[in-house]
Amino acid sequence: MTSLPAPSALPEVEPLDQSLRAELQHIIDTKTKPPGSLGLLEALACQMGLIQHSTRPVVQRPTLIVFAGDHGIAAEGVSPYPQAVTAQMVANFLAGGAAVNALSRVAGMELEVVNAGISTPLPRSDGLIDIPVAAGTRNFAQEPAMTREQALAAMQAGAARVRHHAALGSNVIGFGEMGIANTSAAACLMSRLCGLPIDECVGRGTGLDDAGLANKRNVLAAALAHHEASHEPLDVLATFGGFEIAMMAGAYLAAAQARMTIVVDGFIAGSALLAANAIAPSVRDYCVFAHASNEAGHQRMLEHLGARPLLSLDMRLGEGTGAALAVPLLRAACAFINEMASFESAGVANREA
Amino acid sequence: MTSLPAPSALPEVEPLDQSLRAELQHIIDTKTKPPGSLGLLEALACQMGLIQHSTRPVVQRPTLIVFAGDHGIAAEGVSPYPQAVTAQMVANFLAGGAAVNALSRVAGMELEVVNAGISTPLPRSDGLIDIPVAAGTRNFAQEPAMTREQALAAMQAGAARVRHHAALGSNVIGFGEMGIANTSAAACLMSRLCGLPIDECVGRGTGLDDAGLANKRNVLAAALAHHEASHEPLDVLATFGGFEIAMMAGAYLAAAQARMTIVVDGFIAGSALLAANAIAPSVRDYCVFAHASNEAGHQRMLEHLGARPLLSLDMRLGEGTGAALAVPLLRAACAFINEMASFESAGVANREA
Repeated sequence: MTSLPAPSALPEVEPLDQSLRAELQHIIDTKTKPPGSLGLLEALACQMGLIQHSTRPVVQRPTLIVFAGDHGIAAEGVSPYPQAVTAQMVANFLAGGAAVNALSRVAGMELEVVNAGISTPLPRSDGLIDIPVAAGTRNFAQEPAMTREQALAAMQAGAARVRHHAALGSNVIGFGEMGIANTSAAACLMSRLCGLPIDECVGRGTGLDDAGLANKRNVLAAALAHHEASHEPLDVLATFGGFEIAMMAGAYLAAAQARMTIVVDGFIAGSALLAANAIAPSVRDYCVFAHASNEAGHQRMLEHLGARPLLSLDMRLGEGTGAALAVPLLRAACAFINEMASFESAGVANREA
Repeated sequence: MTSLPAPSALPEVEPLDQSLRAELQHIIDTKTKPPGSLGLLEALACQMGLIQHSTRPVVQRPTLIVFAGDHGIAAEGVSPYPQAVTAQMVANFLAGGAAVNALSRVAGMELEVVNAGISTPLPRSDGLIDIPVAAGTRNFAQEPAMTREQALAAMQAGAARVRHHAALGSNVIGFGEMGIANTSAAACLMSRLCGLPIDECVGRGTGLDDAGLANKRNVLAAALAHHEASHEPLDVLATFGGFEIAMMAGAYLAAAQARMTIVVDGFIAGSALLAANAIAPSVRDYCVFAHASNEAGHQRMLEHLGARPLLSLDMRLGEGTGAALAVPLLRAACAFINEMASFESAGVANREA
């Protein structure tokens, strides 16, 4: 048996270096436009400049990693879709037929699909990164979803995937997920890590009806009570998380360590960030929030993170689709700071004092 | 003297053909995703399919036309920038140094700059479409900004630019503007065409301070009172509009007539749409609203138009910058409807009944 990693083996995240902030702000303020008039694009250009430690930030080889895993909690009827759909959708990703394929392609993103721990056997595929921790998590209504060692192993595996892409030149990265019942895992992570009542964290997921939603609430409230002693971040992640969520949590840490701009997708991706953020709060500095999803609880989660999302399109699909849609906005932020003239260089009169 | 065009010479707009709606909705609903989970992208794909009368809508040669013109009302001190900035910024557009250059380039859009009627002489430039109606409008605090004939001539000129790009294959088009003091023209158009008090329509424009804002309110309230008899849409446009706004109004009509998807930018572009919409209400069917700007009054304007904007990034720059940012979302909408598999074709189980 190989030795399992200790928590100290997780990527360490430095706080964002702020030394270029004044210079970046001056560059932005002297562009030929009224001050502040590019709104969130200005904040984005400044953040990307700080992350890249450059006054000329760029989007290079933007990458989307989709982590997929199954959840024992699915046995409690918390999703309207059968568990086999996780594997079927992964096959769909590999065949190029899912939403994330279309949206990552049109955003010019590299796409990688990772089996983090799916229950159903998958056909062999050259396109799949097949590194499951186990064949799905346990049912956290009864016992912890995974061991602490499994959670750490998943985080390290996610971190390794990010390092792979950093080595290939990616400096912008987003994470997506697939896992039937994973809004249940995410809701419990949010409730415990944010200290919020479960009712503020539970939503309809892929489309539960009222009765299904009531059942999901009851199941999750009971599970949280059953595991009331679990509060340390890694324990919370192990107790309620999924393998895809734990890999994503490790991926966030590695991306921040590698000074990448992280494009945070929706509710599940946000729950993984809550876990990463509880372990290393500086990870938040490297994050851009792609969109406000329609999953109930996501708005509250964004508030907890102090995040203002770039997009609000009533989406609730997951897979990283929101992250893919935000990448053109990052390109736009880099384009204006790199390409626009200053009032002086363009010979344009500035506002009257 | 050439004869001036009659109102009947404006482009006629057909209501949007709805015959493909059920088929488009079925295609969207059977894609491998929970129904409705792509939110506004689904509505966008459906609208573009209807406009193009196709179940496979595409973005072809997306184009941004920036109309620039000067405003006599600038003499009333309603902008913190001197009037010469209109011409200076047009020179900046032609040199490639403005925000709209960077954002249209990164969005893959064709960019055209039109002198609709600038006061300051411009240096000759091959890149400029130099078709001014006159060297700036008159001061509508004292007299109508232009004659009805000038308004019609401007609308026809704008329509002609759109037909030029339609003939080159563009099927998505946005309009931007430059014109010191044009938020004053837009606020008056909005007030009169929407029947709203001027205080709900006036904002800080490029950045007025409190005293400047109070002066702008007083000037515009007095101007509206002075022209209280003007209510017929073309008269309202002539009384308060700018040449760039009138060209844009005609451009909207021609774009809808040519069955293009129209990406509506912010407050000024919206005011031109109000005029076009008052003349031919079907134009609204062809419009996508790019963003909610930070100019006070824009949210209210969007409500009047029954519009839900795609983006909300606290921008207030104009030039068509918001429209450029929305184009990737149109591409994403087309990508998902054209490229995603259906549950049946992908062998994915649909939700349990």
